[in-house]
Amino acid sequence: MKVSKGRYFEDFAIGQHLVHAVPRTLHGGDISTYISLTGDRHPLAASTELARSFGFQREVLPDLLVFHIVFGKSVPDISHNATANLGYADVRFLRPVYPGDTLLSESEVIGLREVSSGEAGVVYVRTRGVNQKGQEVLSFVRWVLIPKHDKTAALGVNQVPALPSVVTVDRLPVPDVMNLQRFADLAWAMPPGDYWDAYAVGERLDHPDAMTIEEADHVQATRLYHNTAQVHFDQLAMTGSRFGKRLVYGGHVISIAMALSQNGLGTALRIAAWNGGVHVSPTFAGDTLRAFTEVVEKVEFPHRTDVGALRLRLQAVKNTTAAELPSILPLLSGTKEPRIVLELDFWALLPRAAPTL
Amino acid sequence: MKVSKGRYFEDFAIGQHLVHAVPRTLHGGDISTYISLTGDRHPLAASTELARSFGFQREVLPDLLVFHIVFGKSVPDISHNATANLGYADVRFLRPVYPGDTLLSESEVIGLREVSSGEAGVVYVRTRGVNQKGQEVLSFVRWVLIPKHDKTAALGVNQVPALPSVVTVDRLPVPDVMNLQRFADLAWAMPPGDYWDAYAVGERLDHPDAMTIEEADHVQATRLYHNTAQVHFDQLAMTGSRFGKRLVYGGHVISIAMALSQNGLGTALRIAAWNGGVHVSPTFAGDTLRAFTEVVEKVEFPHRTDVGALRLRLQAVKNTTAAELPSILPLLSGTKEPRIVLELDFWALLPRAAPTL
Amino acid sequence: MKVSKGRYFEDFAIGQHLVHAVPRTLHGGDISTYISLTGDRHPLAASTELARSFGFQREVLPDLLVFHIVFGKSVPDISHNATANLGYADVRFLRPVYPGDTLLSESEVIGLREVSSGEAGVVYVRTRGVNQKGQEVLSFVRWVLIPKHDKTAALGVNQVPALPSVVTVDRLPVPDVMNLQRFADLAWAMPPGDYWDAYAVGERLDHPDAMTIEEADHVQATRLYHNTAQVHFDQLAMTGSRFGKRLVYGGHVISIAMALSQNGLGTALRIAAWNGGVHVSPTFAGDTLRAFTEVVEKVEFPHRTDVGALRLRLQAVKNTTAAELPSILPLLSGTKEPRIVLELDFWALLPRAAPTL
Repeated sequence: MKVSKGRYFEDFAIGQHLVHAVPRTLHGGDISTYISLTGDRHPLAASTELARSFGFQREVLPDLLVFHIVFGKSVPDISHNATANLGYADVRFLRPVYPGDTLLSESEVIGLREVSSGEAGVVYVRTRGVNQKGQEVLSFVRWVLIPKHDKTAALGVNQVPALPSVVTVDRLPVPDVMNLQRFADLAWAMPPGDYWDAYAVGERLDHPDAMTIEEADHVQATRLYHNTAQVHFDQLAMTGSRFGKRLVYGGHVISIAMALSQNGLGTALRIAAWNGGVHVSPTFAGDTLRAFTEVVEKVEFPHRTDVGALRLRLQAVKNTTAAELPSILPLLSGTKEPRIVLELDFWALLPRAAPTL
Repeated sequence: MKVSKGRYFEDFAIGQHLVHAVPRTLHGGDISTYISLTGDRHPLAASTELARSFGFQREVLPDLLVFHIVFGKSVPDISHNATANLGYADVRFLRPVYPGDTLLSESEVIGLREVSSGEAGVVYVRTRGVNQKGQEVLSFVRWVLIPKHDKTAALGVNQVPALPSVVTVDRLPVPDVMNLQRFADLAWAMPPGDYWDAYAVGERLDHPDAMTIEEADHVQATRLYHNTAQVHFDQLAMTGSRFGKRLVYGGHVISIAMALSQNGLGTALRIAAWNGGVHVSPTFAGDTLRAFTEVVEKVEFPHRTDVGALRLRLQAVKNTTAAELPSILPLLSGTKEPRIVLELDFWALLPRAAPTL
Repeated sequence: MKVSKGRYFEDFAIGQHLVHAVPRTLHGGDISTYISLTGDRHPLAASTELARSFGFQREVLPDLLVFHIVFGKSVPDISHNATANLGYADVRFLRPVYPGDTLLSESEVIGLREVSSGEAGVVYVRTRGVNQKGQEVLSFVRWVLIPKHDKTAALGVNQVPALPSVVTVDRLPVPDVMNLQRFADLAWAMPPGDYWDAYAVGERLDHPDAMTIEEADHVQATRLYHNTAQVHFDQLAMTGSRFGKRLVYGGHVISIAMALSQNGLGTALRIAAWNGGVHVSPTFAGDTLRAFTEVVEKVEFPHRTDVGALRLRLQAVKNTTAAELPSILPLLSGTKEPRIVLELDFWALLPRAAPTL
């Protein structure tokens, strides 16, 4: 078959290894385009000199841009026919990616579970992003609901991988090259935020800004990542769907929410890991997103006095004013309230305040 | 005249040579922007290392991006007042273009033919793209219908150039630097497709994906190419036209159709030439495109065992589901069925399978 | 406060110095994106070789892109809560900016004036753009209307800075590196325009092209500049405003008008300074812009025979056809006619014709 229509549930097997087309060289211009499409103000991505001051070779690609590129390439092989993107686990951002680097994406099938109706199944994959030197830069597990081609064929598979609900501190990647000793001198260069020390467990940040998503914004972003999922691109087919319109790629929602969160967490210099994430309700062009973050946990690193990690729960709601926010908060977590579009549980790395002598 | 309103039919003369403003340096970021606007997954453009494995200096600009840049620059001098873009012939992609290269565009008037009404004429130009070393990278003929400024002036010109209906195999450019001997090792890196050997004359590929075009997509793409044709940009004027809205630049339609065709022809590593092309019906924002390709002819190259050429007929239809496709097929070629937007007859270069010993 | 909601009038003090987040490294790809969003055909930005022929290191970032980057970064600290952007003065483009350069933006409060209602005040700032070598590349004054947080608190401040209504010739920056002696050889490479010598004071250029602005165009441009002003991005909030919709960033209007003016002033190789500018009426997505320019003054530079300056008044109107233009012209300057969206009084540098011997 020269033409690919994607895999169905019965096309997957435990241990199957897939290397995804097409390797992608990232340019400085990808950072510009990403800023233009999302409003990202990631300090390490924005400035060569700033990144160098903290030990990096030069400016780094935004963490989420790296995620979207690696994820996007896996779509044609893994989730082209998926009816739901069910979850993420053990997402670890292992190494900085620089302009000029080329990313390759590959996946291994690590679990398969037939659903009770027998018409579909859940496929679990471990996907890895690897740079041109063969170094792993990103690793994550995701699971998706995939229909069967032959809905009557009972396969009887039920092999669910053991997955960590949280990336424990010993497995949180902190780049060796990163050194935030000089942070105090450069604090002026950051979007609003503070030192790791200043955030308290249980604290909630209501990020004050909002962003309306245009149809052209999300399709351009999704194409940038070589993501070919038709639910984002084929209006003709989506008119006949239960949504009546194209869906915004969930990763674009994460990027917008994360960019909004930079007003309050602008000092979160690097995403270390995601523990999990749920796209609670779908997002469409014309929706206006607003975000807020809760501090869930704080950890220090042995042998590192310059950096600490915050476990954060980032949530995005749509078409809700700041005034309406209090009424929506009791509904969060576990509900399917249609105004809630995202819950992302992740670890961010922040500078620690220098000890006062 | 400081301000240019474009040339009318009587402003052209056989042999006239026009060098077009403004030379344009292409950046890695132009590749990113092109991917973002079209969904292109051209392997040689996507990855530095992949391109090097096949003998190129580094990643190459997508062939169609080069075409649009060279074409776009010719618009203010040639087709600003054109009422129809009638055809292309002898379009040859002569040399790879790399990030950092600067393209210059120039045209020579090679034919003029007054139409029977006497109110307009057809202008034939040979347009060339030249890089900063003076090397020709692209050469093509196009002809356009241009109104007269003074519609009553009879000019009596009727000089139609002899144009090849097909670029013959001896004139098909195959880059000397390109070497696909190592293709088998890198086949994993390609979008869906196959070896030259696996395609049969008469075979038709129904590319399964579809793409809806946003207004912002096509105006951004067209501006990227410095193409100033007002039919794409001036909604106020187009409201009063017979279309009632802006037209999508025909080249953007070609780019979208070609990107869709990469699911089935992802191994078509390079466009060698176009034999001809017709924009059958106009495309507008909101239209959803679908593409299919017929294999018309296969040729081998003497002294090249690594690469062969396929002559392909790429066709794009709009607002037609996959299920409706069979009903539209009998209408193709020669009809003005409004759902048919493109027929492009071109030569692509594909890897040949290694002989089995 | 980790989260910033911007400053109110009482948060400003004369002499206050603010260094703005986040420094931004500019890529070749930023030029591509800027071309794509605005249609800019700036010759020095478009081509490495052309820029070198005129003495520059390589292609330069478009002057207005530099302005928007420096301006955009000042928004969160200065004008986040502004209800009006009242004016610009003494805007000087001091040095060329190249791909790879990093721009930092900083502002000093130079004036404060409480308005008569007592509920708001005008804040005057001098904003500077500085490159990674510490060189000033841009300097300008702007003043904005900022509400008070506590509307009842009388502050009694009234300190208005003395500002030049015109940047005088002795203060017009002409880059030392720039040398237009070779212009005649390269005149073919320019968009339509002429030598400085050919423009006459009082002459008016009606730029023939028009451009319709898409919602995605202006939000992408505004995000590219790290400008976070919510009036451009939050459709939900703007639905409840007197406009009922998002406002287009005034700087995007300037970029579009300037790009349209390149048909007639394509030889204006560099903006030297703005004397002032007014956003007469707001611009919205869907508006179609048209521009015209009046030559106000001509100056020569002592010791420079290759370059002269034109003082130009660039005006943009919306939703007005070329035929309707004469009826709108008597209304220009000083009126609030809603079709007039921009008046920009600026100095451009143009090549001088070689003396005929």
